[in-house]
Amino acid sequence: MNSTSYSDSFDFDLDGIVDLITRTGAATAGLQFPEGFKRRAFSMACELEGRTSASVVISGNPCFGACDVDMALAGEVDILFHFGHSELLDGMDNVIFMETPAKVDVIPVLGAAADELESGTTVGLLTTVQHVHKLDEVKSFLESRGLSCVVGEGDSRIRHPGQVLGCNFSAGDVECDNYLYIGSGKFHPLGVAVAFGRRVLVADPMMNTVEWLDPERILRIRSGIVAKCLDAQTFGIVVSTKVGQNRMELARRMAGLAGKYGKEHVIIMLDNITPEAMLQFKVDAFVNTACPRIAIDDASRFNAPVLTPVEFEIVLGERDWDELVFDEIREGAK
Amino acid sequence: MNSTSYSDSFDFDLDGIVDLITRTGAATAGLQFPEGFKRRAFSMACELEGRTSASVVISGNPCFGACDVDMALAGEVDILFHFGHSELLDGMDNVIFMETPAKVDVIPVLGAAADELESGTTVGLLTTVQHVHKLDEVKSFLESRGLSCVVGEGDSRIRHPGQVLGCNFSAGDVECDNYLYIGSGKFHPLGVAVAFGRRVLVADPMMNTVEWLDPERILRIRSGIVAKCLDAQTFGIVVSTKVGQNRMELARRMAGLAGKYGKEHVIIMLDNITPEAMLQFKVDAFVNTACPRIAIDDASRFNAPVLTPVEFEIVLGERDWDELVFDEIREGAK
Repeated sequence: MNSTSYSDSFDFDLDGIVDLITRTGAATAGLQFPEGFKRRAFSMACELEGRTSASVVISGNPCFGACDVDMALAGEVDILFHFGHSELLDGMDNVIFMETPAKVDVIPVLGAAADELESGTTVGLLTTVQHVHKLDEVKSFLESRGLSCVVGEGDSRIRHPGQVLGCNFSAGDVECDNYLYIGSGKFHPLGVAVAFGRRVLVADPMMNTVEWLDPERILRIRSGIVAKCLDAQTFGIVVSTKVGQNRMELARRMAGLAGKYGKEHVIIMLDNITPEAMLQFKVDAFVNTACPRIAIDDASRFNAPVLTPVEFEIVLGERDWDELVFDEIREGAK
Repeated sequence: MNSTSYSDSFDFDLDGIVDLITRTGAATAGLQFPEGFKRRAFSMACELEGRTSASVVISGNPCFGACDVDMALAGEVDILFHFGHSELLDGMDNVIFMETPAKVDVIPVLGAAADELESGTTVGLLTTVQHVHKLDEVKSFLESRGLSCVVGEGDSRIRHPGQVLGCNFSAGDVECDNYLYIGSGKFHPLGVAVAFGRRVLVADPMMNTVEWLDPERILRIRSGIVAKCLDAQTFGIVVSTKVGQNRMELARRMAGLAGKYGKEHVIIMLDNITPEAMLQFKVDAFVNTACPRIAIDDASRFNAPVLTPVEFEIVLGERDWDELVFDEIREGAK
């Protein structure tokens, strides 16, 4: 599947955008895309300029989630369309979150998924925003196969029942025997498996594959990183300025803990936490309070181990080893 | 010379910083460094926290000049120390520009430089902020060797007479036979040579080398890039959100020109213009209105040619080929 056909598999709702620009009389419109959709940016901007009287500006910044709204662009344009994520934070009056649902039919992959799940058991359904509009359909299908389904509400960071984010697995907080995660990638279902100690079946409707996920390997890797940091003396505590990732309060709490245990430390604040940006900071380890995925996804690319706050607490002895879970950004109940 | 000794060659004025933090009673202090100085960040932050009662936060963002003040960090802390650059823009009340002068003696390299310059001729003296405090000494030495020296004031973007920036060669706008540039790197003196059509002798006091600069090679490279873009149909016009690099007005003028010549185009706005960030934008060429160095320094790393606005005008036929100069961000007279 090449990138063009990849972005063709999603509904960008251009007609809706044209309509909204026309109705609001916006003179300037911004477009912000996650990486996978950026190849569509140029043609979409040209089409919108052709079909409306708005002048369009594209965000060129990397974009990793609804936590990562381009606030500079939002300040520059009358209306900003942010693609690929559901709304996360309130108070962004001129930002429209275009959820960009996948067009793919999820039913074909469910037959094989149902075969893996024991009849009469209860399944917690989870997915990302791209497929969340299909959960009712999924539920009906699985119930017709003799399974009970439960869909968690999630906390107030979660827009749709059953939706998980890379930083929030709260919709998995339900009574069930196993989870069925519908989507691509392993980060979200691994996080759920670790958080709730239950097995997760991953059904990928894009690749038409079904796979049970074993979190043991990632837990061993993370334990190894924690172990490696037991002798570390200098720590860079990393804070992101991204609107939905900034946890300065947590960083200050981590700095306080570092001080309590006599560890040299400093707080480093930046926008995009990349291996290149951190390269010049000569510390034994980083503690990342920004997007929880950074420590996990890019672990091997940094010049020093990157710990989550949870892991840093284990390093210091403030938390037990068996409490090792993925970092989350949780909020209050809805 | 390793990086530690490199940053040891500059005066960071830690005593002055301690004094200012103490006098102002700042509870939080930020530190921002260009890449070459970042290795000092951790130890400097620890020392400042030891010698004052302020809590220190380091900027982890890349930093390319005084155009690139970390405004998010400035908003987070009581006082922000920005190293390695002279003040560029007014109105940043809590930002202190630490010019970080080089400690190196510039006189040793001047003997060889004077040998290259014909007695009785007039030399325009130019340098960066790291050596600008030595220009009086340079002038006296060269005059003792029978040369006349002239030091340009520069426009209002220039803080010190004789100072050049990567985006501003206005201090070279003087009557002279040749220029003597004191500093490292070739970008600034090449820009001066191209802008004023005079030869530039580069004296590098760090490396103790003297070299006449020939701008022909870079002009041939840039002409090749312009020629390559003559058939380009789609253009990404790039704008930076950095406080001293944002030229949206210029970008809109470029967009207007593109439209006039029937070229498809879109404006792309972002913070750090990197090859990685631009990779997904499928256009025939970029027109960069941000830092003028980006098109020149990183030319080969982008997936499409990067033109300066000057070069884009040549591509369109709005400007003659013999008017090819480096892009500058000029301001009014002082």
